[in-house]
Amino acid sequence: MTTTTSTSPATAHADIRVAVSTVIFSLRREPGRERPSVVIPLVRRTRAPHEGQWALPGGWLGADEDLEMAASRTLRETTGLAPSFLEQLYAFGAVDRSPTRAVSIVYWALVREDVSARPAPENVAWFDATSLPALAFDHNQIVEYALWRLRNKVGYSRIAHGLLPELFTLADLREVYEAILDRRLDPANFRRQVDTSGTLIPTDGFRTGSHRPARLYRYDHDVELAERGPLPE
Amino acid sequence: MTTTTSTSPATAHADIRVAVSTVIFSLRREPGRERPSVVIPLVRRTRAPHEGQWALPGGWLGADEDLEMAASRTLRETTGLAPSFLEQLYAFGAVDRSPTRAVSIVYWALVREDVSARPAPENVAWFDATSLPALAFDHNQIVEYALWRLRNKVGYSRIAHGLLPELFTLADLREVYEAILDRRLDPANFRRQVDTSGTLIPTDGFRTGSHRPARLYRYDHDVELAERGPLPE
Repeated sequence: MTTTTSTSPATAHADIRVAVSTVIFSLRREPGRERPSVVIPLVRRTRAPHEGQWALPGGWLGADEDLEMAASRTLRETTGLAPSFLEQLYAFGAVDRSPTRAVSIVYWALVREDVSARPAPENVAWFDATSLPALAFDHNQIVEYALWRLRNKVGYSRIAHGLLPELFTLADLREVYEAILDRRLDPANFRRQVDTSGTLIPTDGFRTGSHRPARLYRYDHDVELAERGPLPE
Repeated sequence: MTTTTSTSPATAHADIRVAVSTVIFSLRREPGRERPSVVIPLVRRTRAPHEGQWALPGGWLGADEDLEMAASRTLRETTGLAPSFLEQLYAFGAVDRSPTRAVSIVYWALVREDVSARPAPENVAWFDATSLPALAFDHNQIVEYALWRLRNKVGYSRIAHGLLPELFTLADLREVYEAILDRRLDPANFRRQVDTSGTLIPTDGFRTGSHRPARLYRYDHDVELAERGPLPE
């Protein structure tokens, strides 16, 4: 055990590259399924390593780009739109995660269903996040961790609204929770919990259709979807 | 708004270096203060940029080091010991945070009071985390964020035990919470909350002294101090 600082192996600058990737969550309704599925877009790799395999959207960090700028860029290039929620997930830097040394700063984002339903660019496709093929690099592990964060965070923040349009019913909101948590929630209990959250603004509108009319709500945008703490914007 | 991926500014590899730094929290008792203070070790810089200013312990990521290995190394070099808790905090990568482009993967750690009380290596000193001088780079901002994470996380995890020795009284444990949250907690309420946590194992030992004897407890090490989720070890 040493207390000197002169033996550091890293006083010189190693050749390590910085990538930024993003796990983008949305919802998709499939015929015959009880709940919407959580889906993510993947990009088919057109060059080695892992040519032909699916990978998270991302790229090398540009010299003049902040990390969050780079994440927004890769997200825009993949889905064509800005996300409703974007947050840093984790930095992955295992020595053997790629043939040449690369640290990936991974973000995660939410986009609404109407956005993810648009035609995807070439080599981009949406996959059920819970049943993925073998992805390039350590990207299966990254998606696993992002799903874990999504399921945790939906319980103590307002991020579910990042998957909803401007106007929604309480049943729409409950469906988002059910899709993320992959289990049914009791409608009456859910309504009680939402009533005490103080973040929903009732509108004068109703959705009519085959059921009895349901009131439309909007989210109080004065309340951030999640606490960021004292992070730089 | 574009949906092509060919306009990426970052297909070539920019010259960006990767550093790893660690915010190390411990407690220290100062005469005349009601509660222990939260303290962090800082290193005085001996070269430009910011020569002579205090900075977080850290260094360049080594070619053969994982991120967490690099964080453990910088921590060992500073305090001479392994931490009781170590977790990734955030990656800071603003373009202008340093004269040459550097992304810092920052970890945070807890070390026990008896560890931080040992003589510090040259150019290392412990500071009250809530009243720091102007630090090098964006390190004041990083400590602010780490403190925010510490205060949040002490409420929904068992990390307070990372600041305690193997055997402790309930008053010792409460004092850790009071130091981190910087406010007094009601002893009876605190005892009730702790009783239901199921992570404390009473021992047959008591601490005797000027007060009535207080039972000594130890932490149930089968329970992780905090949920890591499906992250690689």
